[in-house]
Amino acid sequence: MLVFLPRFHVEKKDQMGDNHQKMQMKKHLQVTMNKIKQFPILCWKTSKKVGAEDPRRIIHSLKVGLSLTLVSLLYLIQPLFKGIGSNALWAVMTVVVVLEFTAGATLCKGLNRGLGTLLAGSLAFFIEGVANRTGKVFRACFIGAAVFLIGSAATYMRFFPKIKKNYDYGVVIFLLTFNLITVSSYRVDNVLKIAHDRLYTIAIGCGVCLLMSLLIFPNWSGEELHNSTVLKLEGLAKSIEACVNEYFFDTEIDENKESCSGDQIYKGYKAVLDSKSTDETLALQASWEPRHSSHCYRFPWQQYVKLGGVLRHFGYTVVALHGCLQTEIQTPRSVRILFKDPCTRVAREVSKALIELANSIRNRRHCSPEILSDHLHEALQDLNKAIKSQPRLFLGSNKNQARNMLALAAAQAGQKQNEKRQLGVSLSSVKTDSSALMEWKTKRVSEQSREAERKVLRPQLSKIAITSLEFSEALPFAAFASLLVETVAKLDIVIDEVEELGRIACFKEFKNGDDEEEHITVKCEKPKISVSQNQLSSVSGAE
Amino acid sequence: MLVFLPRFHVEKKDQMGDNHQKMQMKKHLQVTMNKIKQFPILCWKTSKKVGAEDPRRIIHSLKVGLSLTLVSLLYLIQPLFKGIGSNALWAVMTVVVVLEFTAGATLCKGLNRGLGTLLAGSLAFFIEGVANRTGKVFRACFIGAAVFLIGSAATYMRFFPKIKKNYDYGVVIFLLTFNLITVSSYRVDNVLKIAHDRLYTIAIGCGVCLLMSLLIFPNWSGEELHNSTVLKLEGLAKSIEACVNEYFFDTEIDENKESCSGDQIYKGYKAVLDSKSTDETLALQASWEPRHSSHCYRFPWQQYVKLGGVLRHFGYTVVALHGCLQTEIQTPRSVRILFKDPCTRVAREVSKALIELANSIRNRRHCSPEILSDHLHEALQDLNKAIKSQPRLFLGSNKNQARNMLALAAAQAGQKQNEKRQLGVSLSSVKTDSSALMEWKTKRVSEQSREAERKVLRPQLSKIAITSLEFSEALPFAAFASLLVETVAKLDIVIDEVEELGRIACFKEFKNGDDEEEHITVKCEKPKISVSQNQLSSVSGAE
Repeated sequence: MLVFLPRFHVEKKDQMGDNHQKMQMKKHLQVTMNKIKQFPILCWKTSKKVGAEDPRRIIHSLKVGLSLTLVSLLYLIQPLFKGIGSNALWAVMTVVVVLEFTAGATLCKGLNRGLGTLLAGSLAFFIEGVANRTGKVFRACFIGAAVFLIGSAATYMRFFPKIKKNYDYGVVIFLLTFNLITVSSYRVDNVLKIAHDRLYTIAIGCGVCLLMSLLIFPNWSGEELHNSTVLKLEGLAKSIEACVNEYFFDTEIDENKESCSGDQIYKGYKAVLDSKSTDETLALQASWEPRHSSHCYRFPWQQYVKLGGVLRHFGYTVVALHGCLQTEIQTPRSVRILFKDPCTRVAREVSKALIELANSIRNRRHCSPEILSDHLHEALQDLNKAIKSQPRLFLGSNKNQARNMLALAAAQAGQKQNEKRQLGVSLSSVKTDSSALMEWKTKRVSEQSREAERKVLRPQLSKIAITSLEFSEALPFAAFASLLVETVAKLDIVIDEVEELGRIACFKEFKNGDDEEEHITVKCEKPKISVSQNQLSSVSGAE
Repeated sequence: MLVFLPRFHVEKKDQMGDNHQKMQMKKHLQVTMNKIKQFPILCWKTSKKVGAEDPRRIIHSLKVGLSLTLVSLLYLIQPLFKGIGSNALWAVMTVVVVLEFTAGATLCKGLNRGLGTLLAGSLAFFIEGVANRTGKVFRACFIGAAVFLIGSAATYMRFFPKIKKNYDYGVVIFLLTFNLITVSSYRVDNVLKIAHDRLYTIAIGCGVCLLMSLLIFPNWSGEELHNSTVLKLEGLAKSIEACVNEYFFDTEIDENKESCSGDQIYKGYKAVLDSKSTDETLALQASWEPRHSSHCYRFPWQQYVKLGGVLRHFGYTVVALHGCLQTEIQTPRSVRILFKDPCTRVAREVSKALIELANSIRNRRHCSPEILSDHLHEALQDLNKAIKSQPRLFLGSNKNQARNMLALAAAQAGQKQNEKRQLGVSLSSVKTDSSALMEWKTKRVSEQSREAERKVLRPQLSKIAITSLEFSEALPFAAFASLLVETVAKLDIVIDEVEELGRIACFKEFKNGDDEEEHITVKCEKPKISVSQNQLSSVSGAE
C-alpha cells in the first residue's frame, strides 16, 4: 500500500506542471523501489550471518517448529482430538511461550507456569466455593472484589526482590489463570472440568517443551556461563598484552595497524565490562538445570557470578591502562622505550597466567601450581629495578648496564629454577609461588622504610630542581607502571576465586603432562560464540 | 503439609527410643515453627520496605487491580456479556500481560501485540484460503507443514538483532495467534467471526491498559532515564570527592569512618558501572512514548544512552582512582599531605562541574558557561607546580613556599575574574573555558619539549642515585595524580555530550540568576529512587 503512495503523489504534481518536483518525486520513487528490490537480498544476508554466528540458532528454530507441529497433531488427528478436544489449543500456546533457547530457561518457565497454574487453580476454587453460597448480585461483587484484591497483591509481590528474581513469570501466570477461572466460573458451571482439561493440555505442552530442550540437542545455560567465563579470561589476557605492546610500539610502523590493535584491546575487555546482567541471568537459569556431571552434587553457579565480578574489577584496571595510551599527556617514546623489556615481560606473564586459568576452567581441572611463575616475580623485580635505576639508564652507557642486569636476572632465574626442581611440582608449591608475591610486597614495604631513613640525607640533594622535571615527564609512565603492578595484585584475587571455583566444583587434579602441552602452545583460538546475543533473546523475549 | 512432616518423624524416632535424636528433632521442629510464626512478620516488613522505597509501586499495583476489575465487568455484567460473550476472557488476558510499570513498556507491548495479532490473522486466513480448496487429509498435512515452517522461520527471525530489539514480543504474539487460528480453522468453520471477536476484546484490553498507563498517574520510562542520568552524575561527583578526601585523610581519625567513606565512594560509582542494560531498555521503551514536552519534536533518548556510555567510562577512571586507595604499595602519608591542597581542589572542581551538569539536566536548561571554571584550571596548574616543585617542598621551609604560591594563585584568580567580567557571561565564553583546558594541555606539551632540550644537561646530575628512590616512593602517588588529571580530560567529554544533549533536546537557555542559586547551594539531596529495581521487573517480568 505504502509503495504506491509516491506514484499517486507524482500524478498529482504532474497536473500542476511542476517539473522539478516531478523529477524529485521520481528519484524518491526510484530510491524506494531500489530499497524494496534489495530487501530480500538484505534479509538473506542477515539470515546467513545470524546462522553462521551460531549454528545452534538454526537447530533451535527447527526444534520450535517441530514442537509446534507435534502439539498441533493433537488437534489435527481425529482420535487424539476426540480425547482432548478444543483445549488442545492450550498445548500450542504453552509451547510458543515456554520453549526457550537453553534448557535452564525452558525449565524455569515451565516449572513457574506449572506452579502458578496450580496455585491459581486452588485459590480460584476456594473463592468460587465461598461465592457459590450467595446470591447472583453479591456473587458478582464478591468476584469483582477478589479480582481487584488478588490482582493488586500479586502485582505488588512482583516487586519483592526474591520473588522477582525467581518466580516473576510464575506470578504472572498465577494472575492470568486465577482471573480466567474466577471470572468464567460466574457463567460456566463445570469450571472444574474445564480447568482439569486445560491443566492436562498445558502439561502435555510443557512435556513436549522439556523433551525438546532437555533431550534433543540441548543447550545448557550452565555451559554458556562456563564458556563465557573462559572467553572473558582469554579476552582480558589478549587485552593486556595488546595494551602493553601498543604502549611500547615503534612509531615507524603505520597508524593503521595501531588503531587495529586498539580495537583488539577494546574487544578484549568489552565483553567483560557489561557482563553483569547476562551472567546473573545465566546463573539463575543454570540453577534450574539438572546436573549433567557425575562428580559433584551441584555446579556452583553463584561462584561463576562471583568470579565474573572479580573479572569485571580486573577489567576496570585494564580500561585505566588503556586510558594511559589515549591520554593527552604522553611520556616521550624515548623514555618509554627504556622500560619496554620489564613491562612487556610483566604483561606477558600476567597474560600467560590468565590463559592458564582459562584453560584450567575449560578443561575443568585445577590450575597449574606454576601459575604464578618465577618469571612474573622476576619481571616485577626488574621493573622495580628499572624504575629505580632510571637516572643511570639515562646515561649514554645504558646498553651495557641493561645487559649486565639481564645477565644478573638470567643467573637468578637459573638459580630459582633449580630451587624449584628441588621442591618438586606439588600443590604446596602454589603457596610458595603465591607467597613469592607477598614476599615481594613485604620487601617493598621494608624498602620504603629504609627510604624513610635516607630522607634525612636528602635536603642538600633536593635543591637541584631539575630532577623534578624528570618526575613530571615520567608522571604518565608512572601511572602506567603502577596500574600494571595493580593488575598483578588483582590477578592474585582472580586466582583465588578460580581456585575456590575448582574446589567447590570438584575440578580434577592438575596433571603435569597436560600442563606442558598447554603452557607452551597457548590455546586461545576457540571461535567466539556470541553468548550474550543468544542469551538476551531468551531474557527479554521471555514470554 | 510440610509443617507436619517433622512431627511425624518425631513419633517414629520415639518408638526407637533414641532420646538424643528426639531432642534434636524437637529443636528442629521448634526452629521450623518459629520460622513459620515469623513468616507473616517478615512478609509485612518486606512489603513496607518495598512500598517505602518507591510509593509508585503501590499505585501501579492498584492500577493493575482496577484494570482487571474493569475488564472483568465485561463478563460479569449481563448487558455487556450479551454483546461480547465468552471472548471477554481475552481482554482479561491482555491486561495481565500488557500492563507494565511504565507507559513506554505498556505501549511497546500493546502495539507489538496488536501488530503481531493483525499480521498473524492475515497470514492465517491466506493459508486457510489455500488449504480449503483441497481434501481433508491433504489439508491436515498442509496445515502441519505451514505450522512447522512459519514456526521455525519466526523463531529464527527472533535472532535478528533489529527484530530482537524492537519487535521480539510482537513475533511471539504473531506465532501464538497464527498457530491458534490456523490449527483451529481445521475444525471450526466460522474462524473469521471468532478472530474478529477476539481482536475486538484484545483491543478493549489494550485500550484499558493504555488508558491506565498514559492517563492515570503515568510513569514515563523517559523520566526514569532522565532522573537516573542526573543521579549518576551526582553519584560520580560524590565518589570523586570522597575518594580524594579519603586519600588525604589523617590517620588520627578512626578506621570506622574511613570504611564508611569507602562505602560512599563505592555507592557513588556502582550505579554507573552496571547501567548499560537498564539504560538501553529504558531508552527503547521511552522511544515508544508520546512526547510530553511542547518544545521539541522528539526527546533524544539515544543521546541519553550515549551519555550513559561516556559516564561509564568516567566511572572506570573513578574505579581506578579508588583502586589507588586500596593498593598494597602506598605512598607515605607525609609525602601525600604535600599535595593535599591542589589535589583536593581539582577533585572539588571536577565534582562541582559534575553537579552543575546534573542540575542542568534536571532543570532541562543549558549548563552554566562557567562550568569549567578558572578554579579548575588554576587547581590543575597548582598540582602541576606542586609536583614539579616537590624537592623544594621537601625542605623545611615548605610552609612559606606554599603560602607564597597560594598568594600568587589568589592574585592570578583575581586577575582572571576581572578578565571574565569583561568578557561578559555569554554562551561563547563556554568555548573560552573549554579552550582554557586545551591551552593548558598544549602548554604541557610545549613544556615537555623544553624538558627534552634540558636532558642534555642531565648526565652529571643523574649520577646521584638517591633521587631515584624518591621516584619509586612517589610511584603510587604519581598514578593517583595522573588518574585525577585523566578525570579532568574525561570531564571534557562528558561536558561535550551534555551540551550535545541540551542542543538536541532544545534545553532552555541558561539564566544567570538560576546559576548563582544552584552553584552555591549544591543540591544533591533528592531521594534516590531505585530505578533499576523497578525497571528490571518490567524487563524480565516482561510478559
